[in-house]
Amino acid sequence: MKIDIIENVMQYNKEEADVNRKLFKDKKILVINILSAPGAGKTTFIIETIKRTMGKISTGVIEGDISSTHDSEKIKSLIENVVQINTGGTCHLNASMVAKALEKLKLDGLDLLFIENVGNLICPVGFDLGEDYRILLSSVSEGDDKPVKYPKAFIKTDLVILNKTDLMDYSDFNYPFFEKTVKELNKNSGLISISCKTGQGFDSWISILEALLREKKTK
Amino acid sequence: MKIDIIENVMQYNKEEADVNRKLFKDKKILVINILSAPGAGKTTFIIETIKRTMGKISTGVIEGDISSTHDSEKIKSLIENVVQINTGGTCHLNASMVAKALEKLKLDGLDLLFIENVGNLICPVGFDLGEDYRILLSSVSEGDDKPVKYPKAFIKTDLVILNKTDLMDYSDFNYPFFEKTVKELNKNSGLISISCKTGQGFDSWISILEALLREKKTK
Repeated sequence: MKIDIIENVMQYNKEEADVNRKLFKDKKILVINILSAPGAGKTTFIIETIKRTMGKISTGVIEGDISSTHDSEKIKSLIENVVQINTGGTCHLNASMVAKALEKLKLDGLDLLFIENVGNLICPVGFDLGEDYRILLSSVSEGDDKPVKYPKAFIKTDLVILNKTDLMDYSDFNYPFFEKTVKELNKNSGLISISCKTGQGFDSWISILEALLREKKTK
Repeated sequence: MKIDIIENVMQYNKEEADVNRKLFKDKKILVINILSAPGAGKTTFIIETIKRTMGKISTGVIEGDISSTHDSEKIKSLIENVVQINTGGTCHLNASMVAKALEKLKLDGLDLLFIENVGNLICPVGFDLGEDYRILLSSVSEGDDKPVKYPKAFIKTDLVILNKTDLMDYSDFNYPFFEKTVKELNKNSGLISISCKTGQGFDSWISILEALLREKKTK
């Protein structure tokens, strides 16, 4: 019976995700679901991306947290089109929560929607939200063993972004080991390094983002 | 029906935790459940504690991970009494998993048992394992807003240990803000700062640990 319930939940989520996906396709909005451990820098990454693309790319954000409006307030200082989801304790977003948030977002004219998931390397992995791409943000200060310890998060992603490279000189992070395990788990995943603090790597990231946006518009 | 199932799970876990607790009491073993986000330094914290107490305190470790034996292998280079739990995807330990691991540990003569939970600031919080104390390891590189973002983890702890103070000079971590929110959430929680890299703060931590061990022996 327990297994039945889990299957029903996942099937229902898949159907809701398909509804979201169709809406994103119709509106030609590129949707990126961002996963990471707590404190890897998801919100700062979104803010730094908005700062570099403002006036060129119309961006909206769905902020997922178990409680508080701490992160959405930070983003609202830059853009208006931000909706907070408080999961009330649930450890991940699901497609139904995103569908409800979409009702409050201005979707017309939107190019890009970031969905910042709850900070958790385990539970959000299984939940399709209807997104086009999934980014896994890892950070130098978390250590080079995160792919070994949380493999599913790295397997089920389109792009791994290693943040906080500014801390590389103060840590024993073994980049070749990290890169090797990321590629072993998921040979199709991209891997880039950035620092939200110094801006290192953002030129590469913005180029990737612009290519994905062009691709979405012509689909 | 869903609520019934959750209540049953939690009631069953409580009963199993009580069995563990009785065993720990009979054997006079001090048991500490360590929670943190991925990469906050739980394993290194355990290793640095063992290094400083070896020959004085007999320590065992239960290592909780969703997969891999990466962390338990590191600890096994120092002590023999280590048991790995692989949850197979489950995002937290429960009392029943710990009970099974206890069958494989040498409990006679053991003073201290660390239970390293799965790296996750949300799901492990609700699961009593039968421990005496719960430590929440936070780290400077995760940012000063973790108490605001993950309040339950900070509410349900006995001691907050802020790790990676060696990175304080390279971050914008606001310690007074962190301390204030920790205390607002849980006025009974202790709060100390350490660096597993430089050893800063370990004298205080070992003093606390020795006091808890003395208390346990005389109970």
